[in-house]
Amino acid sequence: MTKTLISSAKQEITIGFDQPFCVIGERINPTGRKLLAAEMAAGDYSRVEADAIAQVEAGATMLDVNAGIPMADEPAILAESIKLVLSIVDVPLAIDSSIVEALEAGLSVYQGKALVNSVTGEEERLEVVLPLVKKYGAAVVAISNDETGISEDPNVRYEVAKKIVERAEDYGIPREDVVVDPLIMPVGAINMAGRSALDLIIRLRTELKVNTTCGASNISFGLPNRHGMNAAFLSMAAGAGMTSAIMNPLHAEEMTGIMGANVMNGVDPECRNWIQKFREAPAEGEGRERRTNRRRRG
Amino acid sequence: MTKTLISSAKQEITIGFDQPFCVIGERINPTGRKLLAAEMAAGDYSRVEADAIAQVEAGATMLDVNAGIPMADEPAILAESIKLVLSIVDVPLAIDSSIVEALEAGLSVYQGKALVNSVTGEEERLEVVLPLVKKYGAAVVAISNDETGISEDPNVRYEVAKKIVERAEDYGIPREDVVVDPLIMPVGAINMAGRSALDLIIRLRTELKVNTTCGASNISFGLPNRHGMNAAFLSMAAGAGMTSAIMNPLHAEEMTGIMGANVMNGVDPECRNWIQKFREAPAEGEGRERRTNRRRRG
Repeated sequence: MTKTLISSAKQEITIGFDQPFCVIGERINPTGRKLLAAEMAAGDYSRVEADAIAQVEAGATMLDVNAGIPMADEPAILAESIKLVLSIVDVPLAIDSSIVEALEAGLSVYQGKALVNSVTGEEERLEVVLPLVKKYGAAVVAISNDETGISEDPNVRYEVAKKIVERAEDYGIPREDVVVDPLIMPVGAINMAGRSALDLIIRLRTELKVNTTCGASNISFGLPNRHGMNAAFLSMAAGAGMTSAIMNPLHAEEMTGIMGANVMNGVDPECRNWIQKFREAPAEGEGRERRTNRRRRG
Repeated sequence: MTKTLISSAKQEITIGFDQPFCVIGERINPTGRKLLAAEMAAGDYSRVEADAIAQVEAGATMLDVNAGIPMADEPAILAESIKLVLSIVDVPLAIDSSIVEALEAGLSVYQGKALVNSVTGEEERLEVVLPLVKKYGAAVVAISNDETGISEDPNVRYEVAKKIVERAEDYGIPREDVVVDPLIMPVGAINMAGRSALDLIIRLRTELKVNTTCGASNISFGLPNRHGMNAAFLSMAAGAGMTSAIMNPLHAEEMTGIMGANVMNGVDPECRNWIQKFREAPAEGEGRERRTNRRRRG
């Protein structure tokens, strides 16, 4: 049983085959959020704080923190954001950047064992990111692409993942500290993207024996009813062996899909989390939104 | 690739690994529906007619027809119901009874290749139902229990299914005409029921190479938010290889789970069915209930 331990100063969590699905909150990320980007660049972290609290309340197991703002001092902003988030919530963090200096700045202020997001199979990335992961005793997300780009062939993506895992071992990073992202492609563009992702997840679990994560919402890019599709994908991915996802925990449909998958996978003992979440159940035929409203009024 | 062909006089459908999930509408069943039972017993089939039309409009691939009413003439009522349903909708039917005379009455008026629901692994059932299935050239649902009851051990349920498939072959019924029901237990009572059902579905597909079906809503018996849990289960079951379910197509969450699974399994070419269903999409962040309301107002 592969177990990836991640910790903050206050909390240790486990990503693993016999664990509830690990929900990594994706909201603290200025990419595509102009207002947040402007605020973070100006030293205003109020929205980062609000996003941290809201995501943990919504059920996030971990939070991803990204400070990728063009023309800004990303290492400094990422370090500030991480210190702030660690001070207001207990959950461990994923330190998310494509800039090595930013990853190091984040790691240097982190308390506990972080998840570094991410390394690819590109030689120049492996050579700089893996020593950093080792130096700080962190875990790392391994993204299944390399110099040749993202292959549509899941077997190629498997081989890239395998190469990263082996290279990490060369650097003294154990296999259980490499969480593979098989790269989810949009089914609206590539019709077999869902099935090949699921089959790749099964191989990564049974053959490479690693934990897995993904940017789940990519699956539904460009399609209507994205929440409904994301929920179906997340349930199926968790059923196939995916153990975490970088996602928005504020979306009720996706979280219901995850919680249902936990029940089906036998990792919600006596359905306690499910029952606690939904016990104020609506009458037959009523939707969840109505219940939420009722609770607010109560 | 195992393909189970089922037909009415007007339509042939295929249950198969490379096919969209087969939704068998469960509503025409007086069990637990006192009003429907009283009406059917009194020769009033107006609700049967309405249920048939509504289920097909909601996306049912087939309809199950059951006339199990205590103290009533079940064979006559089942035959009447089947004639009526065949006259108003095109989809093929599952003829559902635990009484052999009723199955035969239904088969004798059926036009096309029906799905007989069901036979168990009990000797006395095998000996009477299988000859009937062979005589009428039908397919049959095989329920994985026998004289000893329903085993909690999925390996025992697998062996019962295997016995039924082999016995059917002895009677000249090919393996592809046996659709196995692995028997879904409530996760609220048996915590591992979901996982063991999924693992059993995988074995039935990869080892026994049969199509599968189930009474999907059993999974959530006794728990809150049954629709949310059924949807997660159906997506995961379809991901594991389940090819049909006896279910209520009027429930939107369950149908979304199925349609999402079809996309993920690569059996909704270019996501056409998904897009057609959901194309009046809400803006990012809006839920489905709001969209439905808006459409109603529009």
